[in-house]
Amino acid sequence: MADIHTEQLVVIGGDAAGLAAASQARKRRVADLEVIAFEKGEFASYSACGIPYLIAGDVAGPDRLIARQPAVFRDQQAIDLRLRSEVTAIDIAARTVSVRDWATGDSYVQPYDQLVIATGAVPARPPLPGADAAGVHGIQTLTDAMDLEGRLAQEKPKHAVIVGGGYIGLEMAEALIRRGLQVALVDARPQPMRTLDPDMGTLVADALRGIGVDLHLDARVTAFITSDGHIEALQTDNGTIPADLVVLGMGNRPNSALAAAAGIPVGPTGGIVTDRRMRTPVDGVWAAGDAVETFHLVSGRPVAIALGTHANKQGRVAGINLGGGYATFPGVLGTAVSKICGYEIARTGLTEAEAATAGFATESVIVESTTRAGYYPDASSMKTKLIAERRTGRLLGAQIIGREGAAKRIDGLAIALWNRMTVEDMTGLDLSYAPPFSPVWDPVLIAARKAAELIEGRS
Amino acid sequence: MADIHTEQLVVIGGDAAGLAAASQARKRRVADLEVIAFEKGEFASYSACGIPYLIAGDVAGPDRLIARQPAVFRDQQAIDLRLRSEVTAIDIAARTVSVRDWATGDSYVQPYDQLVIATGAVPARPPLPGADAAGVHGIQTLTDAMDLEGRLAQEKPKHAVIVGGGYIGLEMAEALIRRGLQVALVDARPQPMRTLDPDMGTLVADALRGIGVDLHLDARVTAFITSDGHIEALQTDNGTIPADLVVLGMGNRPNSALAAAAGIPVGPTGGIVTDRRMRTPVDGVWAAGDAVETFHLVSGRPVAIALGTHANKQGRVAGINLGGGYATFPGVLGTAVSKICGYEIARTGLTEAEAATAGFATESVIVESTTRAGYYPDASSMKTKLIAERRTGRLLGAQIIGREGAAKRIDGLAIALWNRMTVEDMTGLDLSYAPPFSPVWDPVLIAARKAAELIEGRS
Repeated sequence: MADIHTEQLVVIGGDAAGLAAASQARKRRVADLEVIAFEKGEFASYSACGIPYLIAGDVAGPDRLIARQPAVFRDQQAIDLRLRSEVTAIDIAARTVSVRDWATGDSYVQPYDQLVIATGAVPARPPLPGADAAGVHGIQTLTDAMDLEGRLAQEKPKHAVIVGGGYIGLEMAEALIRRGLQVALVDARPQPMRTLDPDMGTLVADALRGIGVDLHLDARVTAFITSDGHIEALQTDNGTIPADLVVLGMGNRPNSALAAAAGIPVGPTGGIVTDRRMRTPVDGVWAAGDAVETFHLVSGRPVAIALGTHANKQGRVAGINLGGGYATFPGVLGTAVSKICGYEIARTGLTEAEAATAGFATESVIVESTTRAGYYPDASSMKTKLIAERRTGRLLGAQIIGREGAAKRIDGLAIALWNRMTVEDMTGLDLSYAPPFSPVWDPVLIAARKAAELIEGRS
Repeated sequence: MADIHTEQLVVIGGDAAGLAAASQARKRRVADLEVIAFEKGEFASYSACGIPYLIAGDVAGPDRLIARQPAVFRDQQAIDLRLRSEVTAIDIAARTVSVRDWATGDSYVQPYDQLVIATGAVPARPPLPGADAAGVHGIQTLTDAMDLEGRLAQEKPKHAVIVGGGYIGLEMAEALIRRGLQVALVDARPQPMRTLDPDMGTLVADALRGIGVDLHLDARVTAFITSDGHIEALQTDNGTIPADLVVLGMGNRPNSALAAAAGIPVGPTGGIVTDRRMRTPVDGVWAAGDAVETFHLVSGRPVAIALGTHANKQGRVAGINLGGGYATFPGVLGTAVSKICGYEIARTGLTEAEAATAGFATESVIVESTTRAGYYPDASSMKTKLIAERRTGRLLGAQIIGREGAAKRIDGLAIALWNRMTVEDMTGLDLSYAPPFSPVWDPVLIAARKAAELIEGRS
């Protein structure tokens, strides 16, 4: 009974989710677990969220974005992290994966007892000719970032077009403005930042214009115009924009093709289906990170949100369970924050449109207030929007736009949302106050008061 | 049935609580309410919390601290705000107050139908001769601040001693350092900031020493040494400190003497007793602000915490109820924040010592992390302490010390506390993440993880 059977844990994906799972499993099972992690790219364990700041020049070099070097995993954690090693197939019956080693060109089969699929997300790319021309860059991986950096350094492009007005697209627009390029941004919707309601998103559009971004909204890309294989312009259904550089920031979808091909269930969002412990329905197979779908705590629906913080948490949960412990991933609220053009922008929960889709009738308020006491230096204006359920007053979502010191308030709102607080409950919250940090009524409290008054008035 | 009987609302105290009550009552009862507010000082409706920043020079002048001028109350809200008018007695049987008008020296009796007692707090003053010598200043009121400012401008004192190491004392120490004075600080405890645990408070002591404050801890003031009626030195049981300026920041207690003399019940903290709607047990008499005692949501005990944010909320609640509406004040968590010597310091809930007094067995963690992603410019170190109940893991308290961008996280912790979350629950929270705002694991999540692991390990 006392003999130790060593199990093999195979992890597909060497980023946040995969390596968090590997590390947690290793921490709890030292003697009886062999851990191999395959990463198809040349880098592992880095912050993809840091790429816009690398391009902007805020971060000294790509190495700074790497949290842990491969040798650290190997030497300190006995995790056999293999770079440039792509898993091309999973055989759930045989419990093996097929691996292509891009360094040697060889392929081999690796058995597993436990498998963690952490294959991340696939960036959207328009299915148009020229979308892979020279000068058209994705920005998903550190390799992408270094390719873009190389292009900027060598070809010194002058006219950049960003396709996609999400967080990454906007952060890249600002980064390239700071690098001295002329920057246009194309988005198919009437405003950037579709994770905000239009009344808040329009403030972001103003901020972008304020730093000189040429916004092309309500515009769909119809063609990549190239010359000698190099991008020359972007054609949209609303005009043509000259471009010697195009950056694609069109969002992404779960990279679940490998799992799906192996017969591992994929849900309506395209993400791999797991239970709360991050187990797929297939014995011995776990999944975590951008490749999975999770549960939205307010809408009650499956969602796929590619974000490092979820990936880290889910990987940790998978690893704890793999290691014989117990942990669950509770779902998400869609909390997000970004700093763009000197503005802090944050959101959590549902927008008005998302709430309507989920079947909620809502009341909304936007309050304008200041980040600090009005008389304190650097007090600046901020807007807080709350969306509450009609009649019950339950908080359903929140959005913040403001200057330095505004946005981290979203965390308190996320915790209120998590606990299903009503805006009436929230009016009594004991939030911190001192002149350098907030007015005597924190903007969150002012917004809760206004929302509670609105709901009381309508009931 | 349709005749309007006009009631008289009398408010004692022209600051946050009193005027919030008056404003809310007026908002809901326009036609049938006469509102008179008596303020014994020369200023009303100002931010006492802003005084240290006024002295430091961050705020242009005392007028900037005044939220609303008396004329605004009179002309826009029909609130008869009478300055330099001190209520000297309440007769609950006759429903009258006695008022002394310090401008004329006259006294008169004012009847009321409804009375709001918002008499604030009394600053502690050592019962020693010389404590009222020239050069010894309180800093409770705007008048105090202007007196101190006058002293600084005219006498140009060089050696200041602050008595008391609470928030105000520390803020004043920094303000006077910035004004070019040599500053010593005397506190009877072994560390400043008794609202923090010693392991966190010691960091505050280091920060104070770092800007040149001469700390005299574990030292009790034994005598005010004066010459020709002017302060010359402060004698403590641990040495004598030369001083041509002394600032008293020794905390305060509810100013409930007037209420007590009238037979209105006062609780064990010395604060006036009210119900959740801010009614005292005496018919027609309400109370709000620093003069009342409230309920600590974690310890379950009565507490008196003098803070503008509670005063505003309680005044609002009293005013809504007076106006025929319904609102309750739910109690407090003891949330507080301050900026001292470039550090942000925050706390909520119970310290370890307070938790022990309340009967909780606890586990505590302190984690060191960064305010932003490690590679992002201006990422700086911060410490987060969580105190959780043994076995259940229920969060009981939290403390934060760090640089710019650290402390407002206390609000999220306060909301977690409010909702009786466990540290295990908190590990899953969907908090915002982007490199300019936090590491991928926000310090709050790291601390929750460590605390949950500790509690799991001990159970």
